[in-house]
Amino acid sequence: MSQYDHIKKAAYDANMQLPKLGLVLFTFGNVSAADHKLGVFAIKPSGVPYEDLTVDSMVIVDFDGNTVEGNLRPSSDTKTHAVLYKHWPKIGGIVHTHSVYGTAWAQAQRDIPIFGTTHADHLTVDIPCAAPMADKSIQGNYEYETGFQIMNCFEERNLSYEEVEMILVGNHAPFTWGKTPEKAVYNSAVLETVAKMALLTEQINPQAPRLKDSLIKKHFERKHGPDSYYGQ
Amino acid sequence: MSQYDHIKKAAYDANMQLPKLGLVLFTFGNVSAADHKLGVFAIKPSGVPYEDLTVDSMVIVDFDGNTVEGNLRPSSDTKTHAVLYKHWPKIGGIVHTHSVYGTAWAQAQRDIPIFGTTHADHLTVDIPCAAPMADKSIQGNYEYETGFQIMNCFEERNLSYEEVEMILVGNHAPFTWGKTPEKAVYNSAVLETVAKMALLTEQINPQAPRLKDSLIKKHFERKHGPDSYYGQ
Amino acid sequence: MSQYDHIKKAAYDANMQLPKLGLVLFTFGNVSAADHKLGVFAIKPSGVPYEDLTVDSMVIVDFDGNTVEGNLRPSSDTKTHAVLYKHWPKIGGIVHTHSVYGTAWAQAQRDIPIFGTTHADHLTVDIPCAAPMADKSIQGNYEYETGFQIMNCFEERNLSYEEVEMILVGNHAPFTWGKTPEKAVYNSAVLETVAKMALLTEQINPQAPRLKDSLIKKHFERKHGPDSYYGQ
Amino acid sequence: MSQYDHIKKAAYDANMQLPKLGLVLFTFGNVSAADHKLGVFAIKPSGVPYEDLTVDSMVIVDFDGNTVEGNLRPSSDTKTHAVLYKHWPKIGGIVHTHSVYGTAWAQAQRDIPIFGTTHADHLTVDIPCAAPMADKSIQGNYEYETGFQIMNCFEERNLSYEEVEMILVGNHAPFTWGKTPEKAVYNSAVLETVAKMALLTEQINPQAPRLKDSLIKKHFERKHGPDSYYGQ
Repeated sequence: MSQYDHIKKAAYDANMQLPKLGLVLFTFGNVSAADHKLGVFAIKPSGVPYEDLTVDSMVIVDFDGNTVEGNLRPSSDTKTHAVLYKHWPKIGGIVHTHSVYGTAWAQAQRDIPIFGTTHADHLTVDIPCAAPMADKSIQGNYEYETGFQIMNCFEERNLSYEEVEMILVGNHAPFTWGKTPEKAVYNSAVLETVAKMALLTEQINPQAPRLKDSLIKKHFERKHGPDSYYGQ
Repeated sequence: MSQYDHIKKAAYDANMQLPKLGLVLFTFGNVSAADHKLGVFAIKPSGVPYEDLTVDSMVIVDFDGNTVEGNLRPSSDTKTHAVLYKHWPKIGGIVHTHSVYGTAWAQAQRDIPIFGTTHADHLTVDIPCAAPMADKSIQGNYEYETGFQIMNCFEERNLSYEEVEMILVGNHAPFTWGKTPEKAVYNSAVLETVAKMALLTEQINPQAPRLKDSLIKKHFERKHGPDSYYGQ
Repeated sequence: MSQYDHIKKAAYDANMQLPKLGLVLFTFGNVSAADHKLGVFAIKPSGVPYEDLTVDSMVIVDFDGNTVEGNLRPSSDTKTHAVLYKHWPKIGGIVHTHSVYGTAWAQAQRDIPIFGTTHADHLTVDIPCAAPMADKSIQGNYEYETGFQIMNCFEERNLSYEEVEMILVGNHAPFTWGKTPEKAVYNSAVLETVAKMALLTEQINPQAPRLKDSLIKKHFERKHGPDSYYGQ
Repeated sequence: MSQYDHIKKAAYDANMQLPKLGLVLFTFGNVSAADHKLGVFAIKPSGVPYEDLTVDSMVIVDFDGNTVEGNLRPSSDTKTHAVLYKHWPKIGGIVHTHSVYGTAWAQAQRDIPIFGTTHADHLTVDIPCAAPMADKSIQGNYEYETGFQIMNCFEERNLSYEEVEMILVGNHAPFTWGKTPEKAVYNSAVLETVAKMALLTEQINPQAPRLKDSLIKKHFERKHGPDSYYGQ
């Protein structure tokens, strides 16, 4: 028993969703679950196959990236998670995967255009692709800098992390987040599906227009606005 | 026990086919089953995961979109279903999904060309893509207007809803229907397969011609004409 | 018990492989198994879902297309099978599917170019695509004419049905055959994989050259030549 | 019991991973496991379906390609494996598949460009595609020459087989290797995923740039450098 059992369990459950949703090959992904009051998060240990994971193998880390509890080395992306939790107080879960279509857009260094209502049901803007990092930052504290690469992109574009819960890190792959780890995993699957639909849309019609503003507004508000009428 | 048990059961069974056929991610789809004599239909509750659905969770709604029985909020697309049932007396089931290839054609705002006999076995024309809705309608009673968007497209093109049981709503995604909910689900799977085949066909040969009239006629009639010889 | 039990069983087993191999949606496919001494073949009944098939539901038909035994109507493609068995005495099984990539090439009305050794392990020429049928034949005895459409294509190109065990019927979909129904099913899966690889090859390199003759010869002979050394 | 049981077991286990990872259709693949002290390797018997394989059916072959133990004929690619083991003393496993995306790049005769970190996590250069073999070698000892085709490509490009554990054989398909058979299988799955991502990347952005050197270096070193911090 530990005071961190609730986030270990949440992180474990969310990690186990990744292979079920077809979002990871081998160990190419990780999920964390944070408790902002305790100032820590639980994250997948590095390089451990999903079938060998247990609740107790989750590693507890503080928002500066220091291991607080656990015998295994945490995910190599841990510092990116730490930076985001430290600066974005309202997120409870973060997911990183190399899902195939999302990663292809990141490698192509393009934002994913908003082409339809599947996209607009979840966010009102193109899914942003952060520009590749400066060489100096890469050679330095790389995973730590990845956190700032993500936050800088949001600042430059004037985006809110509470409204846009996903990003492509250029040349690398997607990160998503949410109020809970479950929501962050959900967002990873949405991003992958929207990424595939957008590529197919451009293949069917290279001149396909972006979704018009009235439809973007309508679909987002029916799921997320003050008068939303989706769900129970 | 309720007088609506038969359509609740039919709607439940048909909804459960969607994830099995790979047509939905999470809750991105819904099926309804109508009883025209009773003037109502049973439809999936909004935002409830497929694995949590039960027969009794289906919501009974009349053809004006009013809930008649059920504790949950019906699908956010309920009014579109209601409009279609009200005006098209011979359909017993309606399906809406965001299946990947069908949605990509809808986002590309293109009809799906009839390229082969797989398509002609089911309909004799291109699968129509309804033009995006006017802003005024979007800002108004959106889901209700979607029903008219579908019917207007059929009227303008002089199509019969009994012969053509599927449409793409531009920028959005497919709707299909049929005499029964099972047939409507079948049509959704056919649409998705035909949509994928059509994209691949254009990739293999950008000058691929539409199927010639004699083959369209032959294949449709062997399945659906007065002298059809397909099935038992 | 019937004197046809052996081909009923063979046809049933081979039909059940189609959904397992991902080659059919719903009932879009059929396999037959012939006994040339008895002058008949067993074939899938028309429009019956694979999960409802039984050995006894297979229909026995002679090489002129007349039903000899069975209570159900045979596949609507039965006459095509009959024509091929009548003229090609060394084939024991025929398969017809609407597998997605094979059908896309058929709709594009293109032969599948021989790009690599996966293809050359099975045949030494491009997979032929038969030209669409003349309108007069379509309006006549269509499925019977499809058999001649296939044979005519082989005659015009001087191909041997014993060496090339597959074809695309233009605008329609693939047919494959073999000494046994199992081999015919195997060929359908090979065709679908080769069809997908060929499309991807052209997407990666639109100038990809056909496989050179020395490699075609080598790969085919190591599997099929007099000094073959593949298999046991 | 035989002195080769350990490599038979290792080869069997690794072979059985191929269908699970979706890398093979039917028997289109093989894995071997070597013991360099004993100077032999265990390899899949030729043409035997994966579901019929057993540990004892693995064939023991020496590094000149002579069968040492076993009743079945070894894989038709055995001599390629033998040549590589003979010249590359530090590899313990070799895999050959016709996985769809890897094979498409081989057929297109193109190296797979390094576009992102998924690739750089495993190797720092484009995945090499060996030029097709000279006709003279094809007509001679073909599978033996395939081993030299692979080694020559590495020599010409000044690549180390310990750093780059995969290659595409032009017109043919991928080969991968590693210190163990498990690692070689892992590399086959990585190659297939990277191959798919690279094609999609070029489709999304035909001008997508190669990954910049600083990122290549960073990602490879965090997994493989002297100060690596990935895994346990």
